[in-house]
Amino acid sequence: MRVTAAEIATALNGSVVGDGAVEVTGINSLNEAQPGDISFLANPKYVPALATTKASVVLVAAQMPEASKMVQIVVGSPDFAFAQVMMFYGPKPTQLKPGIHPTAVIGEGVHLGQFVAIGPHAVIGDRVTIGDGSVIHAQVAVCEDAVIGSGCVLFPQVVVREACRLGDRVILHPGVVVGSDGFGYATIDGVHYKNPQIGIVVIEDDVEIGSNTAIDRARIGKTRIGRGTKIDNLVQIAHNVEIGEHCIVVAQAGIAGSTRLGHHVMLGGQCGIIGHIQIGDFAMVTAQSGVGKTVPPKAVMRGSPAQQVDVSRAQDVAVRRLRGTQDQVARLQERLAQLEARLSAIEAQGGKP
Amino acid sequence: MRVTAAEIATALNGSVVGDGAVEVTGINSLNEAQPGDISFLANPKYVPALATTKASVVLVAAQMPEASKMVQIVVGSPDFAFAQVMMFYGPKPTQLKPGIHPTAVIGEGVHLGQFVAIGPHAVIGDRVTIGDGSVIHAQVAVCEDAVIGSGCVLFPQVVVREACRLGDRVILHPGVVVGSDGFGYATIDGVHYKNPQIGIVVIEDDVEIGSNTAIDRARIGKTRIGRGTKIDNLVQIAHNVEIGEHCIVVAQAGIAGSTRLGHHVMLGGQCGIIGHIQIGDFAMVTAQSGVGKTVPPKAVMRGSPAQQVDVSRAQDVAVRRLRGTQDQVARLQERLAQLEARLSAIEAQGGKP
Amino acid sequence: MRVTAAEIATALNGSVVGDGAVEVTGINSLNEAQPGDISFLANPKYVPALATTKASVVLVAAQMPEASKMVQIVVGSPDFAFAQVMMFYGPKPTQLKPGIHPTAVIGEGVHLGQFVAIGPHAVIGDRVTIGDGSVIHAQVAVCEDAVIGSGCVLFPQVVVREACRLGDRVILHPGVVVGSDGFGYATIDGVHYKNPQIGIVVIEDDVEIGSNTAIDRARIGKTRIGRGTKIDNLVQIAHNVEIGEHCIVVAQAGIAGSTRLGHHVMLGGQCGIIGHIQIGDFAMVTAQSGVGKTVPPKAVMRGSPAQQVDVSRAQDVAVRRLRGTQDQVARLQERLAQLEARLSAIEAQGGKP
Repeated sequence: MRVTAAEIATALNGSVVGDGAVEVTGINSLNEAQPGDISFLANPKYVPALATTKASVVLVAAQMPEASKMVQIVVGSPDFAFAQVMMFYGPKPTQLKPGIHPTAVIGEGVHLGQFVAIGPHAVIGDRVTIGDGSVIHAQVAVCEDAVIGSGCVLFPQVVVREACRLGDRVILHPGVVVGSDGFGYATIDGVHYKNPQIGIVVIEDDVEIGSNTAIDRARIGKTRIGRGTKIDNLVQIAHNVEIGEHCIVVAQAGIAGSTRLGHHVMLGGQCGIIGHIQIGDFAMVTAQSGVGKTVPPKAVMRGSPAQQVDVSRAQDVAVRRLRGTQDQVARLQERLAQLEARLSAIEAQGGKP
Repeated sequence: MRVTAAEIATALNGSVVGDGAVEVTGINSLNEAQPGDISFLANPKYVPALATTKASVVLVAAQMPEASKMVQIVVGSPDFAFAQVMMFYGPKPTQLKPGIHPTAVIGEGVHLGQFVAIGPHAVIGDRVTIGDGSVIHAQVAVCEDAVIGSGCVLFPQVVVREACRLGDRVILHPGVVVGSDGFGYATIDGVHYKNPQIGIVVIEDDVEIGSNTAIDRARIGKTRIGRGTKIDNLVQIAHNVEIGEHCIVVAQAGIAGSTRLGHHVMLGGQCGIIGHIQIGDFAMVTAQSGVGKTVPPKAVMRGSPAQQVDVSRAQDVAVRRLRGTQDQVARLQERLAQLEARLSAIEAQGGKP
Repeated sequence: MRVTAAEIATALNGSVVGDGAVEVTGINSLNEAQPGDISFLANPKYVPALATTKASVVLVAAQMPEASKMVQIVVGSPDFAFAQVMMFYGPKPTQLKPGIHPTAVIGEGVHLGQFVAIGPHAVIGDRVTIGDGSVIHAQVAVCEDAVIGSGCVLFPQVVVREACRLGDRVILHPGVVVGSDGFGYATIDGVHYKNPQIGIVVIEDDVEIGSNTAIDRARIGKTRIGRGTKIDNLVQIAHNVEIGEHCIVVAQAGIAGSTRLGHHVMLGGQCGIIGHIQIGDFAMVTAQSGVGKTVPPKAVMRGSPAQQVDVSRAQDVAVRRLRGTQDQVARLQERLAQLEARLSAIEAQGGKP
C-alpha cells in the first residue's frame, strides 16, 4: 500500500491532526508498528503504547496529547475505521477460485449459483442448493437438501447436516457442525431411548460462527440463529434454541434446549444458560455465569447461579468481608459475656457494683 | 402420514379421550402445530400451550382439562410415546445406501459385514472391522485395527483412532474424536516429556456421543464408556476414565483422567470432575459444578467446589442474606457500645444511673 | 518384549531392589498388571494398589515396604521412567509410511522435506512448506503459505489455515484448528462489523495440542504458542494471545484476546482468562477459576473471580461457617435485647435491680 494520511482520512470521513501528506506503507498494532505504519487506539488500556509506538499514523476517537509525535486521524470508531483500512489497503485473504475441484463429490439434483467455489474433497449431498458466490472449502460436507445462501464461506471441514438452511453471507469456521441431533431421550426404567430429531437449523443472513462450535437441529421445528448474530469458537447451541438478531456469544458458552434469546443479547465466555427460558433484548450475561431463570430485557446477569450484576458484585464484596465479620461476631460474643457478667454482679449486689 | 388417533393409541398402548376417529396428518410441537397434527406434553412448563395450540391430538401422561378441545391419548411417557410416533410415522432420515463409495480409501485386511455403507472420502485403515449394517458417512477416518460393531452410525468427519473398539448401535456425531492421546507428561526441570499413550478406548453398545466431543485413549489399558450411556456435544473425557452404563453427560462437561463413574450417573452441562475419583451409581452433578472428591451413590452434588445439594443451596441462601447479617452486626456493635457506656456510668456512680 | 529388571534398571539409571534377573514381558498399570509385567507408582493415591497388583516389577521413587513382594526399581521420576520403558519396549504406534497418498491434493509450489508422509484425502495448499519426517495424516487441510517444521505429526482432520507456522516436533491431535479468524467486531448502532483478521498463528517447537482445540489467528501480528507448551483438548485460544514456553493448559480452558502468559504457567481445566492481561511465569490457575486481572509470577489463583489461593480457600471456609455465624448473630440479638431490658430496669429504679 502507498497512500497518504489525508487520503485515508477522506476515505474514513475522519479529520487529520498533523501532516496529512505523511505516507502510509503498512498496517499494524501499536506495539508492533514500524515507521510508515498506520495503527489505532480503541481500548484505553493501550494509551501508554502511544508513547512507545513507532507508528506514523494513528486512528483515534479524539485527539490524544499522548500521540502528538505522530499524525492522528480522528474518527467515530477507531476499531471500525481500522477494519476498513485493513479491508481497503490490507492483504486480501486467499480465496478459492470459482469452480468445482475435480475431487469434490457432488450429489444428484444439486443447484449451484454463479461463481460458486467448491474445494478438494468436499462432499455435496443430493438436492443441495448453494447461492451465488459462495465458497465451500476443502473437505466440507453439506448433506442432502441443505440450502446455502449467496456469498457464504464454509471453511475446511465444516459439516452442515441434511435440510439445514443458511442465509446469505454466513461464515462458518473450520470444524463447525450445523444440524447434528439434539440431545434428547425418554428414560424408561433407567434406559435412555433416543428421541428422533427431525427438525432443522436455520441460520439467517450475516451470521458468523467460530471453529468447532456445535449447533444441534431441532427435535421438531427449527433451531434458529438470527440475522447478524456472531458466535465464537467451541460454543454449544442445543436443539430448538432460538437466538435473535445481532447477538454476541463468546467462546465456550452453552445454551440448553428450547431457550430463546432476544435481539442484541451478549453472552460472555463459558457462561451457561439453562433450557426453556427467555433472555430479553439487550440483556448481558458475564463470563462463566450460570443463568437458571428467565432474564428481562437489558438486565446484566452475573455469577452462578446468576443474579443482577450489582447484587452479585455487592455479594462478592460482602463475602470478601466475611472473615472480618466473623471476627467481629466473636469479639461481640466476648464483650457481651463480659457485660452480662458485670450486669449480673450489679444485680447481685442490689444495683451496686 | 394418515392414521387415526385410535390407531396411534393402539400402537402406543394408550387410551383415547375424545374422538378416536380424528385423523392425524402431521407431527409437531404444541407451539408450531397445525390442525391435523399430533403433539405432546411432557414438561409441565408447557401446560399453558395447551390453550393456544392448534394440534388436533395430544399425548399426555394424564387427562388434562386444559386439553378438552382436542383428542387426548393418555400414555405412560408422553416423551417416549412421541418419539415412537416420530419413528413410526415421521420422516425417515436419509441414510447412505449400503456399499463403498468409489472415493473411499479402504486399507488392507479390512473386514466389512453385510450391508455396510461407506461414504465419500472416508478412510478405513488396515485391519479395521466394521459390523453388519453400520454406516460410515463422508470423510470419516477409522484408523488401523479399530473395531466398529453392527448397526453403528458414524456421521461425517468422525475420527476413530487405531485399535479403539465400538460395540453395536453406537452413534457418533460429526467431529467426534475417539482415541486421541491422553494428556500426560513427566515434568523434569520444568520440561514436559510426553507419556506414551498406548491404551485404547472401548465404547459399549447403544452409546451415543455428540458433536465435537473428545475421548482420549488410555495411557495403558482402556478408557471405557459403558453400555447405553449418552454423551452430549463438546464433552471432554480424559484418558483412563471409566463411565458405567446408562449415564447421561450433558454438553461441555469434562472428566479428568482415571476417574470412574458408576451406572446411571448424570453430569450436568459444563460441570467438571477431577481425576482419580469415583462417582457412585445414580449420583447427579448439577450444571457448572466442580467435583473434587469421591461422590457416594445417589448423592446430588452442586457448586464449585461441589457440596451436597441441600448444603449448597442453604449456603447460597445464607450468602444472599449476608449483607443483612453484616448490617445487623454493625448495629449490634453500636448497641453494645451504648450498653457498655450505660453500664460503666452505673458502675462509676456506685450502681446509681 | 523380553528383558530383565536389571537391564531396565541400567537403561533408566535406576537401582534394583530384589532379584534383577526377573524377566519382564509386559507393561501395565498396577491394577491391570499380570505376572511378568512392569508397572509404576507415581501418585501416592495408588500405594494401596501395591498390595494387590500382580506386577512383577514396579518403578518407584523410593523403596516401598508395601512392594516387598515384587522387584522394585528406584528411579528419580517413576512417571518419566515408565514413559521411557513404554517407548523402548512398548508397542510402536502405527505411523504413515513416507510418501504422498495418491488421493492427497498437493498445491503448486509446495516444498516437502525428506521422508514426509501425506495421508489419504489430505489437502496441501499452494506454497506450503513441510519439513523432514513430518506426518500429515488423512483428511488434514494445510492451507496456502503455511509452514510445518520437521518431525511434526498432524493427526486426521486437523486444519492449519493460511500462512500459519509450526516449528519442529509439533503434534496436533484430530480436529485441532489453527488459524481461524479471531472474534472481533466493531459495533455501530447495534450491528457488528467484522474486523479483518490478517495476522497468523506461530506454534513453536515441541508443542502438543489436543483434539478439537481452536487457536485463532491474530487480528494483526501473531498469536503465539511458546516452545514446549502442552495444550489439552477443547481449549480456546483467542486472537493475539501469547503463551510462553513450557506451559500446561488443561482441557476446556479458555484464554481471551491479547492476553499474555509467561513461561511455565499452568492453567487448570475449564478455567477462563479475560483478555488483555498478563499471567506471570510459574503462575497457576486452578480448575474452573475465572481470572479477571493480571497475575504476578508464581501466584496461585483460585475461584471465580479468582483470588490468591489461600485467600480463596479461607473465604470458602468462612462461607461454610456462615450459617453458624448467622445463628450466632440471632442469638446475640436476643441476649443483647435481654441485657438492654435488664439495664433499663436498673436505670428505671435508680440503679437498683
